[in-house]
Formats: sequence, C-alpha cells, structure tokens
Amino acid sequence: MPQFRVVLIEPLNDGNIGAIARAMRNFGIEDLVLVRPCVVGEEATKRAMHGLDILKKARTINSEDEALKDVDYVAATSGIDTLCEKKFPRISMTPRAFAEKTRDVTGQIALLFGREDFGLDNELIMRSDFLITIPASPTYSILNISHAASIVFYELFASGYEKQVPRETGELEKEKLHEYFSMLLDVIDYPEHKKEKTKVMFRRLIARSVPSVWEFHTLMGVLDGAIKRSSAGTLPKKKREKKV
Amino acid sequence: MPQFRVVLIEPLNDGNIGAIARAMRNFGIEDLVLVRPCVVGEEATKRAMHGLDILKKARTINSEDEALKDVDYVAATSGIDTLCEKKFPRISMTPRAFAEKTRDVTGQIALLFGREDFGLDNELIMRSDFLITIPASPTYSILNISHAASIVFYELFASGYEKQVPRETGELEKEKLHEYFSMLLDVIDYPEHKKEKTKVMFRRLIARSVPSVWEFHTLMGVLDGAIKRSSAGTLPKKKREKKV
Repeated sequence: MPQFRVVLIEPLNDGNIGAIARAMRNFGIEDLVLVRPCVVGEEATKRAMHGLDILKKARTINSEDEALKDVDYVAATSGIDTLCEKKFPRISMTPRAFAEKTRDVTGQIALLFGREDFGLDNELIMRSDFLITIPASPTYSILNISHAASIVFYELFASGYEKQVPRETGELEKEKLHEYFSMLLDVIDYPEHKKEKTKVMFRRLIARSVPSVWEFHTLMGVLDGAIKRSSAGTLPKKKREKKV
Repeated sequence: MPQFRVVLIEPLNDGNIGAIARAMRNFGIEDLVLVRPCVVGEEATKRAMHGLDILKKARTINSEDEALKDVDYVAATSGIDTLCEKKFPRISMTPRAFAEKTRDVTGQIALLFGREDFGLDNELIMRSDFLITIPASPTYSILNISHAASIVFYELFASGYEKQVPRETGELEKEKLHEYFSMLLDVIDYPEHKKEKTKVMFRRLIARSVPSVWEFHTLMGVLDGAIKRSSAGTLPKKKREKKV
C-alpha cells in the first residue's frame, strides 16, 4: 500500500478543509498539506470532528513544489473529463481504477485537490502522473470538494478492504433445505402440476439471497415446524390406513 | 434501474441537507423527503448549488410511514456494523454490494439516513430490507452524513456506469511496436547479452500501461525516428560491406 498525502491548493472555504480532515480520519489518511489556504477558523474545527488532530498537524505551505517534495507520484483530481486523445493530459481514470492501479505502489502519492471555484490549473494537471475524475451526471459533474475527496479516500480504503461476511451455507445444507421445502409441498397437498415450478422458484430465491448458516438453520426450523404441523392431520389418516 | 428516494430522518444541520441536495444532483437522484427536519435556511441554500431545485422541491413530512409510502424497498444506512449472526438486523452490506444487488430492481427504493448524532433508531433498521455500512477505519467509522450519502449515491451511479476509454491498441499494433523496439536495440548496438531482458522489460511496461491507439502511434513515431537517426551511422557501413 502506498502512503498518501492530501494536498489542497488554495482552498477558499475552511469548512471544507475541516470536512476533508474528518474524511481523512474516516479512511486512515493522516498527512494534510495546505497550499496558500484561506484562514482556517472555527468552521474548520467544528467540521473536523475526530479529524481535528489531522487539521492541527496540517502544514501550511506557499509553493506547490514544496508541497510535492519527496512524493513519488502525483495524482490530480478534476471534474472535467475528455475522450479526445489529442487532449491526453485531460484523459482521466475513475477513482476505482486509480485505487486498483496504485494498490501495490510502495512509495508516497500526493492527492491534489484544486480550488472550489476553478479546480487545478493546467500546469499542475500536466505535471501529474494520474488524473482522476469521479463519474457523475453529465448535467452537473462538479462535486463539493470534500465530497470528491471522501469518494477518492473511500475507494482507496475499499480497494484494500475485504468485507468479512458471515459464513455461507454449504451445498449439503442447501440441498437439505430444498428437500424440506419439497416435503412441505407434499404435506400441504400443493397442486401436483405446480410443484416443479414452485421448487425452482424457491431454489432461485435462496440462491439470490445467499443465506448464512444461522439463517439456514432458522429457515430449516420454520420448514420443519410447518411440515410437522401440516402432517398432523395426515398422520392419523395413515394410521387408519394401517388398520384397514 | 430502480428509482431512488432519499429520506432524511430528523436532520439537525441544514448545511448537510443542502450538501446532500447537491450530491443528489451530481449523481442523478431527484426525490428528497425530509422527516421532521431542522429549519432549512440560508446555509442549506448556499451549499445546495445546482441542487437547489431538489432542495426546493423536497417534501417535509411528519411521519416515517408517510415518507416510505409507495416504496418497494427500504435501505437503511448505519455507521455501525456487526458480524454476530444473532444480531442479524445489524448485519450490513457495502454500498457496492447494495448497488450490484439492486441494479436490476425496477421499483422504488428509499435510502434512509438518520440523525447526525445517533443515526437511525432500531425500529427503522428492523424495518429495512437492506442495511448499508460504508467500510471505513475501525478507529473512526462515523462519516459526515452528506459524505456518507454522496458515497452511496456515487456507488449507485458508478454501478450503472461504463467509463468510455480510448480504444486500446490491438495485438498486431503491439507486436509492431515490439519489433521496432527490437530494431532500435540493434541499431544502437545495445549489448547482446542484455537484449532479451530489456525487451521483456519493455513488453511488461507497455502491457501495464495499456496504450491507446493514439499513444501507440506517438510511440511508434518516436521509435521510428530513433531507429532512422541511429542507423544513419550504420547504413554507410552496410554500403561499404557491399562494396567488398
């Protein structure tokens, strides 16, 4: 995993700076550099929440060169994208593609965010190794800067993240479930000609829901209860049959 | 694609409401319902930007039931997750998994966001069909509500989005490039014992960079130029050899 440095170029709204510090804390990024920022006041503090220490440790710097010192790669962000190959400096990648491309980088990567009103200037975009554009509505693709930042941070975090999910049921357990379902159809005298279709429906439904072991046992309990209860009326019948 | 309705339960900060309206516009969602909100004032208007019409059209409602009327599925969001199967109402999915699961739904889905200070109450979480938790740092997983919302909207948008990329080079074009690279190594009298390794390096590098057709032609032009220039000294040699 690379190390990330967040570099805000001339942010105009200190609330946004605070919101970005909070989002950095949410997604495990700590190094914040502000290039010629507005006054960082109360609104920034208020919105930083648990990211307050990141805000307090942020370095304020006058030049882009200094902000990008010791950085191995520069990733610029832009709300404007193009498909025209001749404008290649403006051809961008999605945050997801960026996260995947850089997952195995071991160096330092700077994430550049431009001014709220006109973004990053061409010089910085030309100088960047990666250009990231967040896919958004073509009618209004310019996101709030802290939203854009948190989506990029989220993708970087999520790309290294494996959600732990409850254990899924195995094949044997699943077949047991379908066997019980079939038994239930039998004991409730479900119309014979509809049985196959209904079983398929149930099989598809279960497949889509991917039940956990616990959910499986719960379902089995319900089916078992229903089978027992429904067959209560049929069992004596069988006994009577025996008597004959 | 399903239709989405954003339902904010008792939002406390009108700036957040405005920021959410803007994010909705960014990601193509229009239906906003506010249940017992704070006063929606100037800060909301300021931060809504091009989402102002969404903010103005937002319905203010007193009851959750009314807010969820005509909705086919309810998706709740929570910053708290669990793996314990017995607490199944708290077992959540990532926004990405949610987007994938619901992509083919044709009905109406409500996206519920709770109060900034304590989220959604248990009753609403029990009642929801989906529970979404954004993967975030275990040390501080509570995001600003408008950030959480925009990440969910982004995933919904991105799941239906295919980034158009410039056409990639085909196999033939690539082999031409490698042929030229090999020719270049020849004409610059590159050490024979290093040639193979260097060619492999170039092949790997090109593979990783996935050049577009335009980039390919540009590279070919550079290689061709280098070959011609470098062989300018060797061509006469050949001529001399012919003379012998």
